[in-house]
Amino acid sequence: MRIFGIDPGSERTGYGCVETDGRVTRLVTCGAISASAADPFPQRLARIHRELLKVITDCHPDCVAVESLFYSVNVRSALKLGHARGVAVLAAVEAGCQVVEYTPAEIKRAVVGYGRAEKHQVQQMIKLLLGLAQPPSPHDAADALAVAICHLHSMAPAGLKAVSVPSPSGRKARSWREYRPPTAG
Amino acid sequence: MRIFGIDPGSERTGYGCVETDGRVTRLVTCGAISASAADPFPQRLARIHRELLKVITDCHPDCVAVESLFYSVNVRSALKLGHARGVAVLAAVEAGCQVVEYTPAEIKRAVVGYGRAEKHQVQQMIKLLLGLAQPPSPHDAADALAVAICHLHSMAPAGLKAVSVPSPSGRKARSWREYRPPTAG
Repeated sequence: MRIFGIDPGSERTGYGCVETDGRVTRLVTCGAISASAADPFPQRLARIHRELLKVITDCHPDCVAVESLFYSVNVRSALKLGHARGVAVLAAVEAGCQVVEYTPAEIKRAVVGYGRAEKHQVQQMIKLLLGLAQPPSPHDAADALAVAICHLHSMAPAGLKAVSVPSPSGRKARSWREYRPPTAG
Repeated sequence: MRIFGIDPGSERTGYGCVETDGRVTRLVTCGAISASAADPFPQRLARIHRELLKVITDCHPDCVAVESLFYSVNVRSALKLGHARGVAVLAAVEAGCQVVEYTPAEIKRAVVGYGRAEKHQVQQMIKLLLGLAQPPSPHDAADALAVAICHLHSMAPAGLKAVSVPSPSGRKARSWREYRPPTAG
């Protein structure tokens, strides 16, 4: 069972893949796609899409988990992040993967046990959970691994069926939180 | 000289292509990509990207002009629109096209002569400028044709060199307003 996590960003998009046999979870790969702020924005989007599609295809994950955007950023930042997240989700769909999403609070709660955990606490827990010598770097890669682990933790221990994670606000999960491609399970 | 215009939206993305010999401007094609609100969002993004890439490739435009998002929408709408706009810009880059962007006010000023023109005024002007029997429908297609015509109007009459369109706020145009692929122009 392999889960690929993405922490999208217009300047740096973190990614990380973990696999589990139901007992031990280990790191497959992680990293970040950086784009120079000097590059034109369309070129940066194309790079995020191209590199993500390649690494997702190489990893053959069973599912791609994407961090939801932080809803209190301003409209301008939201637009920019939306572009990056759009091409990231597209790469997952094109790779034929199921796509799920989790909010930052859900991810922190699943990994650290506390929805308002600090970034360094997340990094330390990722290090512990994956048995690494050092916390993953850059922090975008650690955040992406956290999304993947959050999705693993949201599954029933006996199988691979995803269960819904209640939202902190109690609102109904939107339908695309669990998108399955027509050809897959 | 062919210009392809896009009016991105998460529910309906308008597109339109015009061509000019420097004297007469005529319609090549126009339409809208609709996605059912019942479809999962990742599927809608993949559809917008796939269909746009096909129609851009078929049209062989010299340039793709995209409407900028309206900056006063709320953060949630901005995020959603950002996703759709991201995959639209990606399709243009993948088709090897130069990408330019214009704000709604710039488009209205270029087409109607007034930055706060109403939607039906834009549709009527598109009908006149392209010598059509009826205004293009749906209005998203007319809006996309307006972006394309805005870009035509922003060019020096003698040649194909794009000139910068001053922004209403006087702020410096961002660098990616005119993105040229490394292999082109």
